[in-house]
Amino acid sequence: MHASPEGIVNSLILTATSTYSSKKTTNAILTFAALKLTANFEPCFCVFAGCVHYSGDPTLFEEYWLTQPDAPTVIPSWQGMSYFAHRNNDYLFVDYFLEQAIRKIHGMVGNAVTEGRYIVLGVGSTQLYQAALYALASPESPSPTPVVSAIPHYSSFEGCTKFMDSRKYKWVGDAEKFKRSATKDQPYIELVTSPNNPCGSMNKPVVNGNGSVVNDLAYYWPHYTAITAPADYPIMLWTMSKISGHAGTRLGWAIVEDASVAAKMAYFIQLNTLGLSQDAQARGITLLRAIMSSYENQRAGGVERERQPFFHYGQAVLEGRWRRMRQALDNTSRFDLPEYESSFCSFLGKNFRANPAFLWLKCKAEEDCQQLLKENKIIARGGAVFGMSTQYVRVSMLDRHPLFDLLLARLASLK
Amino acid sequence: MHASPEGIVNSLILTATSTYSSKKTTNAILTFAALKLTANFEPCFCVFAGCVHYSGDPTLFEEYWLTQPDAPTVIPSWQGMSYFAHRNNDYLFVDYFLEQAIRKIHGMVGNAVTEGRYIVLGVGSTQLYQAALYALASPESPSPTPVVSAIPHYSSFEGCTKFMDSRKYKWVGDAEKFKRSATKDQPYIELVTSPNNPCGSMNKPVVNGNGSVVNDLAYYWPHYTAITAPADYPIMLWTMSKISGHAGTRLGWAIVEDASVAAKMAYFIQLNTLGLSQDAQARGITLLRAIMSSYENQRAGGVERERQPFFHYGQAVLEGRWRRMRQALDNTSRFDLPEYESSFCSFLGKNFRANPAFLWLKCKAEEDCQQLLKENKIIARGGAVFGMSTQYVRVSMLDRHPLFDLLLARLASLK
Repeated sequence: MHASPEGIVNSLILTATSTYSSKKTTNAILTFAALKLTANFEPCFCVFAGCVHYSGDPTLFEEYWLTQPDAPTVIPSWQGMSYFAHRNNDYLFVDYFLEQAIRKIHGMVGNAVTEGRYIVLGVGSTQLYQAALYALASPESPSPTPVVSAIPHYSSFEGCTKFMDSRKYKWVGDAEKFKRSATKDQPYIELVTSPNNPCGSMNKPVVNGNGSVVNDLAYYWPHYTAITAPADYPIMLWTMSKISGHAGTRLGWAIVEDASVAAKMAYFIQLNTLGLSQDAQARGITLLRAIMSSYENQRAGGVERERQPFFHYGQAVLEGRWRRMRQALDNTSRFDLPEYESSFCSFLGKNFRANPAFLWLKCKAEEDCQQLLKENKIIARGGAVFGMSTQYVRVSMLDRHPLFDLLLARLASLK
Repeated sequence: MHASPEGIVNSLILTATSTYSSKKTTNAILTFAALKLTANFEPCFCVFAGCVHYSGDPTLFEEYWLTQPDAPTVIPSWQGMSYFAHRNNDYLFVDYFLEQAIRKIHGMVGNAVTEGRYIVLGVGSTQLYQAALYALASPESPSPTPVVSAIPHYSSFEGCTKFMDSRKYKWVGDAEKFKRSATKDQPYIELVTSPNNPCGSMNKPVVNGNGSVVNDLAYYWPHYTAITAPADYPIMLWTMSKISGHAGTRLGWAIVEDASVAAKMAYFIQLNTLGLSQDAQARGITLLRAIMSSYENQRAGGVERERQPFFHYGQAVLEGRWRRMRQALDNTSRFDLPEYESSFCSFLGKNFRANPAFLWLKCKAEEDCQQLLKENKIIARGGAVFGMSTQYVRVSMLDRHPLFDLLLARLASLK
């Protein structure tokens, strides 16, 4: 999602592409028009011309779950009524069985250390990101703590840092630039997304001073990249949406080393939303268990497999999409694409090249790459919101199959 | 929930009262002790001495839902995966069927005008409260917009207003005091909770200047008070937790008159948590429909009733509790209680006296009323967090039956 006013309108248009009622669409556009958020109504025209948004909704995985009808979440009417998850005492709102499932799936995949760490839940990693800023902002500092991230960085960091106009922290952006000007011992919070959103690279911190680092590991799962070692950082953010594709469940978690940081993050969640939905947690338990059971069934040799092993499925589908994408881009000479190296994945037991969730394109000519795509009915996110030039554009690889096929055809047609 | 650090510890103790594992409890206490949030470990002792928290968790209604086993929420694994609720276009994250159910139940009960209004959903009314501040804070004002509420006011308003240390608004508190010192045309945001939390009175705005008013109507339902007219205010906040008792679902909604205010609130929800759980929304649809169907079945005379009419049940249970509470308090001369008048309820078709969700006690002697109760193993919220003196204390009337019985016995024993 965009974090800009224009982003609202764009998102609205995305919804409108799958609308059931043109009257309702018109109402929605009028509502947002009332806000005067945009003076440019071109996108509205674009919808009716057949534009498609490739913004990052991970609907690709729907197909897997449609073929696994034995994993519904059933919540009796009397279940989970209390504010508190009574099965857990470390944090008031955390379901004990969900916490166990989270620790278990990281153990199975081998992508994170959880032993001796605290699990803090949030309404998606979006909320946990804000909880981390709240917990890490220096209370001693007379001025707001700078928040930095190497470019290109995740497009929502800026908006989520700025919107409350807090005195606790401030958005500074480009971490390399900050490093050059920062004094020794200056407090800061650095955000490191790895694999990176938008470009898929395996990022490390760049400031390496006396600040705090938040590691956003949303995409460190075998469908997107080889798992080479368990991630082991003080604050790691994860989200259901990029594992199973259930973005709508709004379930994220932080794995936190320090008890007081974890407690402050949990306190933020309490003040901000009085915990998080027990229903989302129930769903999370069902889905994580379904993924894990797809491997248990797999191991029970001889017995008919009930469920396709999830990460094997995801990696194969994304690898196939990237193969087709590279072929499509071979038909055009207008874009540059980052190179991705092969690594050995300890979980899948094979070498493979990263299959990032996003296509990070650079127009070879000095032109507005987002605009170029828009003219070809592909709505994607331009480089500016990632801290880069308009020569770059980010296109989601995770849309439903028919829309992905359309994307290939439209890109290949750009001679 | 308390909004203070001490509140975390108290809440923790609450959980510990229903703990399954003393080892986990000890871990939890150690975790929070690491935060040095409290130097007073007396509450820990209190837990083991059999103290009970009466803080406002609406578990009373569990009993109703346990007798209605035909209202489970079933979510297939592939449902609600997208960030967006594709069945609605007015707001990206709002399920169309939930919006319809919300409008329908207000229409059935007659407690709010929804026609021509926007419905904005949030993670409980806690988040919507913050969304309203965000939307209403004056962008033109050189200083933060004052946030005020007549005392006694809801205890979480202060913490939820302060914790982000925003430059947009600031907590000022006591609305009467603000009115006396405010200049004409000074922007402000006034919070009006009616029926009021903690004291149950039917509040009106007190400043009546050129500011904005947010009406918190969480308790304007027939179990708590007579419905005398549909509420008709520019911004009205509601929450599932106080209707059906499903606090853990974290589902609130705002009914908003102005399109731009509604859009700004929705934008806050987008930046803060990227929408809200589709699972919580699915649960909300099931529960609101179950409540409404308890009346449809009722009306189908002759046919066996499947479900007890919900609000009739709730009003009868709370009326019974208040009768017993008044009898228990007759045994002691230490407290004063507010008087509540009778009104004619258009929905239940009868006159009755309000049955507030909280007992708002004043110690007749000049003493710390929270401390007095604590010595008698009743943990309740002292007057100070409501902007009042320590002579007042708020005790929840909505706990599970055995705990309510214990409360009666303990209060009656205070000679």
